[in-house]
Amino acid sequence: MIRIAVDGMGGDYAPQVVVEGAVAAANDFAHLEIVLVGQPDALKRELNRHKVLGGKIVIHPASEVVDMGDSPVAALKKKKDSSIAVCIDLLKKKEVDAVMSAGHTGAAVAASTLKLGLLPGINRPGIAIGAPSLHGISIAMDVGANLNPSATELFHYAVMAEVYARCIFKKKRPSVALLNIGEEESKGTEALKEAYKILRDSKLNFVGNIEGRDFFTGKVDCIICDGFVGNVVLKMCESILETAAALISREVKKSPISMLGALLCKPAMQAIRRDTNYEEAGGAPLLGVNGTVIISHGISSAKAIRSAIRVAGDLVTTKVNENILESLAANGQVEAAKAVHAAEGKTT
Amino acid sequence: MIRIAVDGMGGDYAPQVVVEGAVAAANDFAHLEIVLVGQPDALKRELNRHKVLGGKIVIHPASEVVDMGDSPVAALKKKKDSSIAVCIDLLKKKEVDAVMSAGHTGAAVAASTLKLGLLPGINRPGIAIGAPSLHGISIAMDVGANLNPSATELFHYAVMAEVYARCIFKKKRPSVALLNIGEEESKGTEALKEAYKILRDSKLNFVGNIEGRDFFTGKVDCIICDGFVGNVVLKMCESILETAAALISREVKKSPISMLGALLCKPAMQAIRRDTNYEEAGGAPLLGVNGTVIISHGISSAKAIRSAIRVAGDLVTTKVNENILESLAANGQVEAAKAVHAAEGKTT
Repeated sequence: MIRIAVDGMGGDYAPQVVVEGAVAAANDFAHLEIVLVGQPDALKRELNRHKVLGGKIVIHPASEVVDMGDSPVAALKKKKDSSIAVCIDLLKKKEVDAVMSAGHTGAAVAASTLKLGLLPGINRPGIAIGAPSLHGISIAMDVGANLNPSATELFHYAVMAEVYARCIFKKKRPSVALLNIGEEESKGTEALKEAYKILRDSKLNFVGNIEGRDFFTGKVDCIICDGFVGNVVLKMCESILETAAALISREVKKSPISMLGALLCKPAMQAIRRDTNYEEAGGAPLLGVNGTVIISHGISSAKAIRSAIRVAGDLVTTKVNENILESLAANGQVEAAKAVHAAEGKTT
Repeated sequence: MIRIAVDGMGGDYAPQVVVEGAVAAANDFAHLEIVLVGQPDALKRELNRHKVLGGKIVIHPASEVVDMGDSPVAALKKKKDSSIAVCIDLLKKKEVDAVMSAGHTGAAVAASTLKLGLLPGINRPGIAIGAPSLHGISIAMDVGANLNPSATELFHYAVMAEVYARCIFKKKRPSVALLNIGEEESKGTEALKEAYKILRDSKLNFVGNIEGRDFFTGKVDCIICDGFVGNVVLKMCESILETAAALISREVKKSPISMLGALLCKPAMQAIRRDTNYEEAGGAPLLGVNGTVIISHGISSAKAIRSAIRVAGDLVTTKVNENILESLAANGQVEAAKAVHAAEGKTT
């Protein structure tokens, strides 16, 4: 059984939608047990609306809530009993195997980094996300944790995104590219030029730079970028379907024939909406911290919460963090190699 | 009559497509005269395929061509008689009023900056572009000239984009926003936080930060960003229609009813394609240099070249550079104020 701490108070529609998603995950996935963290009265009230099979959800109290307007580090200092802080404490004490939060991203990143520490050799954690493309899912990393990564940090993101693509999306030898303003090695910022060289000489399946136009095409499996451009692009992706739908709907209303055509196309458009639905991808892991933490969008639906909890479980069962350490070691990162060696010593 | 120097050798399909576009501009716009710059034999051969009304195109020789693989500054030093260098020389000597090039962007930026110099008070030029949105055109700036602008440079881009929106797109009191990873003032890089303060205290119609999801909605008239994220986002925009079309086409082929529906929707889809066509917007001005320079995409069609030449003429007739200086002066930029004062002294 895998135990997942769920931040019951985090998210725009918390606790209602979070509890609904947690119940769905508990009922649908036999191997998962949920520890719902937050204000017990509010959580109990929501839990009472649902039927939970076989006591697979327990409530763990946390009296405070981090607000979206709070500064991450200040929130951590002032609100020591916040739902996200308590979730991470449970993970640190190994009372749970993973944490899922749809709350304040900055607070989740700060709490994870400060309380759990980082994997040996990693300087800064990053957020990876599975983005729908023309040919399945591409991983984009970082999408918001590190606005100005160094070349080494970009290289670490490449290693971690590649492991995530292998373990969770079952891709064989995933391809890796840098998101840049041109395909030539000489293009972009100094950090990108340096990262290009490190990646070229690594054991990863590095295919060079890609430009913005290739983001949706699924040309590569892992798209590596700084957290600023990753965040802007991700939010654009999320709005594209809505914008396209608004454009099409406005245009077809101008003619009855087009309206009939649109009606006939409706099932096809719904299928596209389903295939490119961010809710299905389910959450974004914070990789590089010494523990398993999944972050969900604040506006997540219950379905998205359920998916994110499922992925949190998958990160544990597929041993993503152990795989990251092994890949870092294989790519010449000394500290990671020492950690792998020590772990092997312990198990043999 | 306004004279526009056209870089006849710049662009992926030069000189053929460039000459075709230049001929269309000369024939369609009575107030424009074209100076086609490049290798005379090649240009003459292309010109002979077309009918030009009333001698409105002349050829000016330039023996060399900047290749896409050339480094910008090195190209400028080694190829002193390149078509783009000669175009800018003609502008500096006031033999033409503006320059249009679909060639190497870096070379055009370097040649313009080094030969023409910058407007008083401007540190770095930027490229502005009119991007189609749900509600007309939004201006994005910078989209590739300056990968890491300072707060002051971002402020200057806001001033210049606002003037461009007023003069060329006839927007009244255009709204200005920073592209950021959150709407709160505290979000983003140090440069963005500082630029937020400068813009808040300026006379511009500053509406705060917008996120990636608002890029297409037309929520604001001018979207200010660094050249890296601007370039990535712009190239994404260009590919979105293609990607959406590929997705829809793949899905509707699964059912005859959907295929009939798609057939009936075809005129509506074509209308959307036309309304969101980057070719109609026509080129992107390099603003901040002391002269009028329009840069076009390397893959520009003849129609896009024609549009870019038309916009080059509009930048001259609406006195965009004079308006930029006045707006800089009105926003407390001392060097610009001095330049405006000196110009007034000369004309009165």
